[in-house]
Amino acid sequence: MAANDSVVVIGLGRFGRSLATELVEEHTEVLGIDLDADTVQSMSGVLTHVVRADSTKEEVLRQLAVHEFTRAVVSIGTNLEASILTASLLVSFGIPDVWGKATSEAHGRILSQLGVHHVVYPEHDMGQRVAHLVRGRMLDYIEFEDDFALVKTRTPSEMADRTLAQSAIRTRFGLTVVAVKRPGEGFTYATADTVLRPDDTVIVAGRTEQTERFSELH
Amino acid sequence: MAANDSVVVIGLGRFGRSLATELVEEHTEVLGIDLDADTVQSMSGVLTHVVRADSTKEEVLRQLAVHEFTRAVVSIGTNLEASILTASLLVSFGIPDVWGKATSEAHGRILSQLGVHHVVYPEHDMGQRVAHLVRGRMLDYIEFEDDFALVKTRTPSEMADRTLAQSAIRTRFGLTVVAVKRPGEGFTYATADTVLRPDDTVIVAGRTEQTERFSELH
Amino acid sequence: MAANDSVVVIGLGRFGRSLATELVEEHTEVLGIDLDADTVQSMSGVLTHVVRADSTKEEVLRQLAVHEFTRAVVSIGTNLEASILTASLLVSFGIPDVWGKATSEAHGRILSQLGVHHVVYPEHDMGQRVAHLVRGRMLDYIEFEDDFALVKTRTPSEMADRTLAQSAIRTRFGLTVVAVKRPGEGFTYATADTVLRPDDTVIVAGRTEQTERFSELH
Amino acid sequence: MAANDSVVVIGLGRFGRSLATELVEEHTEVLGIDLDADTVQSMSGVLTHVVRADSTKEEVLRQLAVHEFTRAVVSIGTNLEASILTASLLVSFGIPDVWGKATSEAHGRILSQLGVHHVVYPEHDMGQRVAHLVRGRMLDYIEFEDDFALVKTRTPSEMADRTLAQSAIRTRFGLTVVAVKRPGEGFTYATADTVLRPDDTVIVAGRTEQTERFSELH
Amino acid sequence: MAANDSVVVIGLGRFGRSLATELVEEHTEVLGIDLDADTVQSMSGVLTHVVRADSTKEEVLRQLAVHEFTRAVVSIGTNLEASILTASLLVSFGIPDVWGKATSEAHGRILSQLGVHHVVYPEHDMGQRVAHLVRGRMLDYIEFEDDFALVKTRTPSEMADRTLAQSAIRTRFGLTVVAVKRPGEGFTYATADTVLRPDDTVIVAGRTEQTERFSELH
Amino acid sequence: MAANDSVVVIGLGRFGRSLATELVEEHTEVLGIDLDADTVQSMSGVLTHVVRADSTKEEVLRQLAVHEFTRAVVSIGTNLEASILTASLLVSFGIPDVWGKATSEAHGRILSQLGVHHVVYPEHDMGQRVAHLVRGRMLDYIEFEDDFALVKTRTPSEMADRTLAQSAIRTRFGLTVVAVKRPGEGFTYATADTVLRPDDTVIVAGRTEQTERFSELH
Amino acid sequence: MAANDSVVVIGLGRFGRSLATELVEEHTEVLGIDLDADTVQSMSGVLTHVVRADSTKEEVLRQLAVHEFTRAVVSIGTNLEASILTASLLVSFGIPDVWGKATSEAHGRILSQLGVHHVVYPEHDMGQRVAHLVRGRMLDYIEFEDDFALVKTRTPSEMADRTLAQSAIRTRFGLTVVAVKRPGEGFTYATADTVLRPDDTVIVAGRTEQTERFSELH
Amino acid sequence: MAANDSVVVIGLGRFGRSLATELVEEHTEVLGIDLDADTVQSMSGVLTHVVRADSTKEEVLRQLAVHEFTRAVVSIGTNLEASILTASLLVSFGIPDVWGKATSEAHGRILSQLGVHHVVYPEHDMGQRVAHLVRGRMLDYIEFEDDFALVKTRTPSEMADRTLAQSAIRTRFGLTVVAVKRPGEGFTYATADTVLRPDDTVIVAGRTEQTERFSELH
Repeated sequence: MAANDSVVVIGLGRFGRSLATELVEEHTEVLGIDLDADTVQSMSGVLTHVVRADSTKEEVLRQLAVHEFTRAVVSIGTNLEASILTASLLVSFGIPDVWGKATSEAHGRILSQLGVHHVVYPEHDMGQRVAHLVRGRMLDYIEFEDDFALVKTRTPSEMADRTLAQSAIRTRFGLTVVAVKRPGEGFTYATADTVLRPDDTVIVAGRTEQTERFSELH
Repeated sequence: MAANDSVVVIGLGRFGRSLATELVEEHTEVLGIDLDADTVQSMSGVLTHVVRADSTKEEVLRQLAVHEFTRAVVSIGTNLEASILTASLLVSFGIPDVWGKATSEAHGRILSQLGVHHVVYPEHDMGQRVAHLVRGRMLDYIEFEDDFALVKTRTPSEMADRTLAQSAIRTRFGLTVVAVKRPGEGFTYATADTVLRPDDTVIVAGRTEQTERFSELH
Repeated sequence: MAANDSVVVIGLGRFGRSLATELVEEHTEVLGIDLDADTVQSMSGVLTHVVRADSTKEEVLRQLAVHEFTRAVVSIGTNLEASILTASLLVSFGIPDVWGKATSEAHGRILSQLGVHHVVYPEHDMGQRVAHLVRGRMLDYIEFEDDFALVKTRTPSEMADRTLAQSAIRTRFGLTVVAVKRPGEGFTYATADTVLRPDDTVIVAGRTEQTERFSELH
Repeated sequence: MAANDSVVVIGLGRFGRSLATELVEEHTEVLGIDLDADTVQSMSGVLTHVVRADSTKEEVLRQLAVHEFTRAVVSIGTNLEASILTASLLVSFGIPDVWGKATSEAHGRILSQLGVHHVVYPEHDMGQRVAHLVRGRMLDYIEFEDDFALVKTRTPSEMADRTLAQSAIRTRFGLTVVAVKRPGEGFTYATADTVLRPDDTVIVAGRTEQTERFSELH
Repeated sequence: MAANDSVVVIGLGRFGRSLATELVEEHTEVLGIDLDADTVQSMSGVLTHVVRADSTKEEVLRQLAVHEFTRAVVSIGTNLEASILTASLLVSFGIPDVWGKATSEAHGRILSQLGVHHVVYPEHDMGQRVAHLVRGRMLDYIEFEDDFALVKTRTPSEMADRTLAQSAIRTRFGLTVVAVKRPGEGFTYATADTVLRPDDTVIVAGRTEQTERFSELH
Repeated sequence: MAANDSVVVIGLGRFGRSLATELVEEHTEVLGIDLDADTVQSMSGVLTHVVRADSTKEEVLRQLAVHEFTRAVVSIGTNLEASILTASLLVSFGIPDVWGKATSEAHGRILSQLGVHHVVYPEHDMGQRVAHLVRGRMLDYIEFEDDFALVKTRTPSEMADRTLAQSAIRTRFGLTVVAVKRPGEGFTYATADTVLRPDDTVIVAGRTEQTERFSELH
Repeated sequence: MAANDSVVVIGLGRFGRSLATELVEEHTEVLGIDLDADTVQSMSGVLTHVVRADSTKEEVLRQLAVHEFTRAVVSIGTNLEASILTASLLVSFGIPDVWGKATSEAHGRILSQLGVHHVVYPEHDMGQRVAHLVRGRMLDYIEFEDDFALVKTRTPSEMADRTLAQSAIRTRFGLTVVAVKRPGEGFTYATADTVLRPDDTVIVAGRTEQTERFSELH
Repeated sequence: MAANDSVVVIGLGRFGRSLATELVEEHTEVLGIDLDADTVQSMSGVLTHVVRADSTKEEVLRQLAVHEFTRAVVSIGTNLEASILTASLLVSFGIPDVWGKATSEAHGRILSQLGVHHVVYPEHDMGQRVAHLVRGRMLDYIEFEDDFALVKTRTPSEMADRTLAQSAIRTRFGLTVVAVKRPGEGFTYATADTVLRPDDTVIVAGRTEQTERFSELH
């Protein structure tokens, strides 16, 4: 396993496991590390290498050649101290790309102060995203920075059986329809001539507030 | 607070807090419930109502009129038993829209068997999403069902200072460029005439595999 | 052991052990599962098969071929979470006859919501039954649904040395005497000509309230 | 509350609560004692008197006049030591009728050695009883001592639409049919002329083995 | 080891260890049982047999042939439940001479109710005894039942250099001087002619109160 | 309460409680200190003063004027650290007479090294004493230093109905009979003319080994 | 209390208490913070202000105006997580002079990575210093960086009763004698004419190795 | 390893490890003892001998020949009881030079009462020392007994570029400058002709208060 092409993922809870599995499915080699024997065993057929080890000990990480990797993820979930001790070591190794999962604002701030390059907040981000689904008719929602969001929703009834040009969505809502999906088919790109059917699913992009307004149409 | 227009959020950890706060910001009334006094106090100025209560007791939930809500979220994180007991009560109340956060596959299966209508897996979904960012040049990534993804990435060098028409992205990659962002500005919709600058950020939509290939261009 | 003729009993505490032993004595094969090594060892000569295993893990149950049984009992007593996780798996296997022991109303409701087919409440049911014994002269008591009970009691003095016909029990109490037992002998069926002796034990059937009244006779 | 007509129930878990509630419903006054404040509160409207107290302390029991009762039940479930300490005190008070719930054979032996007059084993007894239900077609089962049992079961198909006299159950099985129940009605006493319908429920009495054989008919 | 001449000592804490060692020194064979491996090891050269075993399990005691002993001591100190379970088994074996160490009044009462033949209270008895030493000039003190005590003390100054006859101790104090000890020598029996020296130690017997008065002389 | 006439007893477990109660009964004032509120309450009517306090804190002891006492007992049983911390403070106060209860050899050695004046080992001493009772016919046994013991035992049959002079106990056993007790009466001093009856209890003094031999007579 | 002239000391264990007390004695105002009520109470008369507060919470520190101080010490000893959370907040406040006590190398590295300006290791430094005292004749030892140490020792016998000039310490050992102390007096500066007496104490400065050699003289 | 030339260090936490390592570097043989396997392993290449052992047991220490050492250090940090038990044994062995690390005043007093010869308080002493550094311009500070201190500080601006004679430090401050250090060089002894440069570091000796005053110059 070439350490500079691979990713070391430390902490194989729900987040780390899902991340590591996705990497392997995309043909990236992964060294997984966890303290729990059961977890390690259950991942042993899935990841390139899985090791049961205490990542808070410098000599342990060095024996596993972790300091030679260029990309590392600290996805330790419940043990704040272990997350910090591990992240501190990875930063001290000079690994150029260290990711850390934070479970609270304070945790995130500490990871940043230690020198972790990317801090992610799964619970916080998913909470925001699900809020939009709980509220109304959206089927999915994703917000990028700078006030730009994408929404998956059903065709509003007033736009059913009309072309996008007829509905004048960009004019009326400041939005663009990116893709459309018939039941049982995949998404296709929308054009001005695309006719929305009542049971179509559409992906719409635009400013956050305008996507909200759009999704509240019936 | 009209129970039928509002949402009750039980469990105010990172996920629940973020979800509840987002709802309030979008003008939806929220009744927040948590067992921890500190958590309740810190949310008391933020949510419409926050109560410290044991949501595993039927009489407690009834006193709070939880059975009159039409939408409820069980976002209890660490205590599997409390999550299940609470979800069981909400289902037995006949609430039409119950959401549950699952921390494992088994947890998710139990919530579904109990009759919870929507089950979400924040750690798992964010793990998948971050895997794409760890791997390469993507700045953000979101995958919808049916093999359709959106990627935020930098302008590939070979497309710099050319119009989208010239780069023939749809022809070559089967992708569509949805929006473009200059440094310091917001996103604007891309058209065939849009010229990508080397330091622009672009949002590209299309089939999962093709977005991956695109993001690996330098 | 043919899984479709046998019963798998998970949780070998007092209830499970007694149930499993009774099944074996009635010539039904039993696979017993418990997490505790001592418990498993003490049952190893008694049941057809006894295994120490963690029944909350799907792969563990599958290795034991639990999914091939047609009858399963979840008799885990003290650990609510383990009971629920195990029951959830059995239901997801599609086992047609799943029994669950509940230690509280909430526990029972959850088992039902998960899809467990029969839920029993030993503590609750025995509490009710013993209440009748504590109150008075009854030696045993059993109540069926629909207001019908059986009572074992001593011969009331006013009926001693008379035939059942003479005592007119059905007329006066709306009850029927099912069986009578002399000290040192077994029960025999009662007829109109049966003479009750002062130290006989009788089994009387009828409406709950009337059995109570009868048992208060001296 | 006249102590000599009432029952003191110590330990209000599932068994004790059910027992105490049944006593009150049958118009017997009950003094309930438990160590847990929530339990006491939830029973405060149900029992005649409920007190939160530590029953292992002699002075506490005396202040509650427990030594003046003639009937007492020790239904402490999970804390063996508390059960023994309490039972020891009740016996030392000279209460003439002390009942104890045992959770194991050893527990039961100790209660007997201490001088408790009646020892009951809910988990064990219900385990035996449910074993008969798990095995086959029985709907309920109760076994008295001396090899005499009652079974509730569906009408065997070969006896449907015939009188009991025609089916010759006593002759063929050595059993007597006590009562019969049509769907939606109550039980009525069976006579030789009673015709069993296919969907009737019957209660049959007789020797244990013969009731088993009968219930295996289809 | 002949079980009927030997003593089984269960629980090798301070009390049990001291008791067992003394027995061995007086040529009585001892089977020592304790749950703690270190304790067992440290006694292995001292007692006739020492075994690490759980004395609360009937089958364990039977394998060690404990039921064949005629004398048994339950000297389990800190675990009330283990003491009671063990004593209950010994009594159920019918061992004719069972001793139990009690750590509280309730513990002692339970042991007696179970049928333990001799109950001792080391902490209580030594507390009483030491009280007399703390108060004054006594060097040792022992009280038998029926108001009769022995006291070891220094020669009161007024009796120094006089014969016991001259001091008239029996007349004045109602006491008898049993033995006298010169510094560096052993005790010898006192007679009327014995002369007490100022630095002699004397053992005096008599009624409790009078020994107290005597020991307060200077 | 004059501190210089009184005794402070720290730790009111079985030993301390018994010691303190005995002191009070002998008209010595006692200040009792314990950390446990229940213990303090139960002793509040018994001792002169009882205080709930943490005796390991110097300022606490000074506020209670413990440093002004001339006699102190550290009878803390289960918490080695608390016993040592307390004893260390009492010694540092310069109290002239400090007693300490030791639960092990190491504990005793530490108390002595700290400067505690008298160390007692209740469990050890009572273990030795009871060993003599377990072995044989003795009813009680007490051993003084220098090989001198007192034994309470039944009249050996060969000495029944004879005077002590006739039995020649001193000549044959080197022992002296101190006192004799008829059933239902108190002890009286024995003389050469005392006739031992078969059911008398006798107290015999002499060398340890010879008292043993005597008590083995039948 | 002017925050910019004062010091906030968070964590009042042995180190923090000693540091804070010394500051107050040198007329610097101190705000002490600790989580433990007893600790806070015992320091309340000693420091300018002492507060019981949870220093890991940002809002708590802001209410105490900690963010306005220019000097802060994190002397939390045993709770690594609390130390890190607190230090992270102090750094995020932009306090210009943050000191942290580290209990391990990893702890120290993390504090530095967070941006703490001065990290001290009391256990480590004192261990080194005491090593020199354990080895030999030194009475005290202190090492500065750059291989320069000071030693307090007794007069070597060969230099007794001679002037420093005669002993030629600088020539022979490369050391300088800084100060000399007669028994019962204070230190005075040494000059070439100073005569060392056999029982004088001297402070000698120079390279580490040479001070060691010097202190080994007899 | 000759026990009489070596040092046994019991407890290899930060203090003990640092002390033991320093001793080894100064060519003194060290036997290190700790209860923790990881600690022992990590020191196994560093110290002469390292053993995992329970130092509270006399037989364990004797097997390691600890009683033959002439110098011993008890550096057990967190477990007060273990520190006291170990120190008690070392003193009882008659080891002539026992050092103990105390974590509190009470701990230190107990070690002294037990007979430990030297008691050190790292946290307390370092707290005092660091207080001087926190307050001002000092770079290091060390105080000997009898009001004599050494301070490392930067050159005060008013003394820059002048000889020590010109600055008249002894006259004006009652201090002597012991050594001076240029950036990048080592310390050299100061003489009257030494010229202090603005960025020099100086070590100054004298009375505590005067060193404080000097260090406050700018």
